[in-house]
Amino acid sequence: MTEIEKLGEKTKIASFDLRIAGSTIKNDALDFISQLIDKNRDQILTSNNIDINNAKETGMSPAMLDRLTLSNSRIDDIIKGIKEVKSQNDPIGQVIKMDQRPNGLIVGKKRVPLGVIGIIYEARPNVTIDAACLCLKSGNTCILRGGKESINSNIALVNLIKQGLGKSGLSKDCVNLIKDTNRESAKELMHLDKYLDVLIPRGGSGLIRTVAKESSVPVIRTGEGICHIYVDDDADLQMATEILINAKCSRPSVCNAVECVLVNSNILENFLSIVVPQLEKYNVELRCDKESIRYAGKNAISANEDDWDTEYDDYILAIKTVKNINEAIMFINEHNTGHSESIITNNYIKAQMFLNKIDASAVYINASTRFTDGGEFGLGAEIGISTQKIHARGPMGIEEMTSYKYIIYGNGQVR
Amino acid sequence: MTEIEKLGEKTKIASFDLRIAGSTIKNDALDFISQLIDKNRDQILTSNNIDINNAKETGMSPAMLDRLTLSNSRIDDIIKGIKEVKSQNDPIGQVIKMDQRPNGLIVGKKRVPLGVIGIIYEARPNVTIDAACLCLKSGNTCILRGGKESINSNIALVNLIKQGLGKSGLSKDCVNLIKDTNRESAKELMHLDKYLDVLIPRGGSGLIRTVAKESSVPVIRTGEGICHIYVDDDADLQMATEILINAKCSRPSVCNAVECVLVNSNILENFLSIVVPQLEKYNVELRCDKESIRYAGKNAISANEDDWDTEYDDYILAIKTVKNINEAIMFINEHNTGHSESIITNNYIKAQMFLNKIDASAVYINASTRFTDGGEFGLGAEIGISTQKIHARGPMGIEEMTSYKYIIYGNGQVR
Repeated sequence: MTEIEKLGEKTKIASFDLRIAGSTIKNDALDFISQLIDKNRDQILTSNNIDINNAKETGMSPAMLDRLTLSNSRIDDIIKGIKEVKSQNDPIGQVIKMDQRPNGLIVGKKRVPLGVIGIIYEARPNVTIDAACLCLKSGNTCILRGGKESINSNIALVNLIKQGLGKSGLSKDCVNLIKDTNRESAKELMHLDKYLDVLIPRGGSGLIRTVAKESSVPVIRTGEGICHIYVDDDADLQMATEILINAKCSRPSVCNAVECVLVNSNILENFLSIVVPQLEKYNVELRCDKESIRYAGKNAISANEDDWDTEYDDYILAIKTVKNINEAIMFINEHNTGHSESIITNNYIKAQMFLNKIDASAVYINASTRFTDGGEFGLGAEIGISTQKIHARGPMGIEEMTSYKYIIYGNGQVR
Repeated sequence: MTEIEKLGEKTKIASFDLRIAGSTIKNDALDFISQLIDKNRDQILTSNNIDINNAKETGMSPAMLDRLTLSNSRIDDIIKGIKEVKSQNDPIGQVIKMDQRPNGLIVGKKRVPLGVIGIIYEARPNVTIDAACLCLKSGNTCILRGGKESINSNIALVNLIKQGLGKSGLSKDCVNLIKDTNRESAKELMHLDKYLDVLIPRGGSGLIRTVAKESSVPVIRTGEGICHIYVDDDADLQMATEILINAKCSRPSVCNAVECVLVNSNILENFLSIVVPQLEKYNVELRCDKESIRYAGKNAISANEDDWDTEYDDYILAIKTVKNINEAIMFINEHNTGHSESIITNNYIKAQMFLNKIDASAVYINASTRFTDGGEFGLGAEIGISTQKIHARGPMGIEEMTSYKYIIYGNGQVR
């Protein structure tokens, strides 16, 4: 047995008890974890500093360095996050439906945890706490495999999690961390079918595609977001402008930010004359087709074919001109990643057509794509935004981290 | 583009219209298909005869030959099956929930088809119709890849399906068959991520494991059934006997048949003295541990370690002696395939413990495992019994062949 197989076995055995644990003990554990994090800030920040210094030496980019960095205020956010997870409804044990069959068998459908969840993620220590607490609340044990640059932070955090688990009476193996951060360990996790029920990659699209391709454990793909806004010729152009600016510029690095705007050719010049000056305020680079580039101002360059399939996660926006809504729908269904798409229109028929025909997790009429989020949808904290169709689609909250089983009460029935 | 990629593209394009089609047109298509099958029995049987003759020449086993064979009465069953699928409730378009958020956004969760489903199966022509009709009713287009021995039957049947689709006004590409039945075509289908939303293998556990391991398309594992019955020392032994005989002998070739009985050591001699003569009537071979072999009669042989992990699908039963319910639960959770497990007991605490702690799609108290079936559970016709935890678990009826999307009605909201 390899080290990772041993970890898999321990985490699976821990899941036998956690999956039938009630809310009280799980909430106690979350309380202990948040208290321990609060009391051991120095230790966490010291470990994080080692990671930061190592990362600086290897020349990590400022954006990645920012994600790696913890601070007292970020620890406050982590603690707030744990409290939020704790406050959420615990769906485990709920009997979704139960009926008596003609032969007297009583057949019920009961919500249960998935079991053991693997999480592969990048160098973001906050994900360590976030993922572990969501798994715990939903009755799942987990094996975490974070980015190598955050290993010291992760070890410090997982030690505190294990202390909290121990204090509550739950097994310390409910949360395990793979400390060996070479590529082989990630690969081994992707083939740990015997112990893992599902694998969730969290991070950039490169990571997600690699995991989906390589893994023999069932994967839930999350967070790839090439999101579009279609500005129809029946749109309120002022509203379209506000929505587009919000969707592009409020937080360009996140997956629900818009990457491409489709503009109806009838309003192309008019709309761009309003929106381009606003985009210039944020210094957004525009990658334009040949119709739109004429009206797209000083930050415009010509788009190439790759631009229609690129998630920029940056102050960059692709602009594509379309003749009508049908062309917009065809284009989006060909180039989107199944995340979030929005139409801006006051036309009832076109709004309904867009809603029905667009194939994505979240389809909007007259609103920003930025709302695709567990909190905004009323699901609470989320483990990610699923962009695939099986199991769960869109924000995955605690309920989406569960499965069900049939429970059947008989009194001797045979078939 | 390869031939299979072209088929993938056509099937995906057909899904754009099928996913928003109402029940009327889908039911019309099902009616036309069943009428065409009824009217063209001779043509179907002629094609099937070619397959049968080819199979006989290559020395196919009688069991496989039986599954390959169509007859007028089997065509009657196929037609009955189509009518059953047609009569089921169409869940597509249902809004599961819809709420207004504090900012006025109206967020709804709407049931939609999965999209394009790939089905890989063995030489069973009835699966061709069954799978195609379930996909059609649930708004999914499909690409079928049946066993090479049934290719002539499948071509004849899919031609009739396409005629039926055409008559109803739906695209003939809603159902496509891969006519090239070499191994490469199955492999290519397993990597057709661009066009397939999910892949469902139907057949023996060898096929299912290969597909799950090889495929980069999300797979739903179905139908691997190493099912157990635990006969507790508080069981009604007469009831336990009836249930065990039913679960083993009523149809040993199916996945919900029992493969292993665990017997509490306190009642071992007593229970076997009652049940063994019954099992002998069916000439069931018993693979026994060293405690049970003493009481297991003339058809008993010693079990080896492999027997605890084998799906016999035959008149063979493994017998394992356990000291108590905890040992039974541990053994089942280690050796089961997540299908169906049953406890026979009159003890409340042990019944509840079994129900909660066993990790399987269907967990029974005092009933035969043979009830794990879409029809028996009230779900209607099924595409298979899922033995994995993500997406769906247990019998997958039409509702389990769907996904959902969020639909969001705004009036200019930004975040």
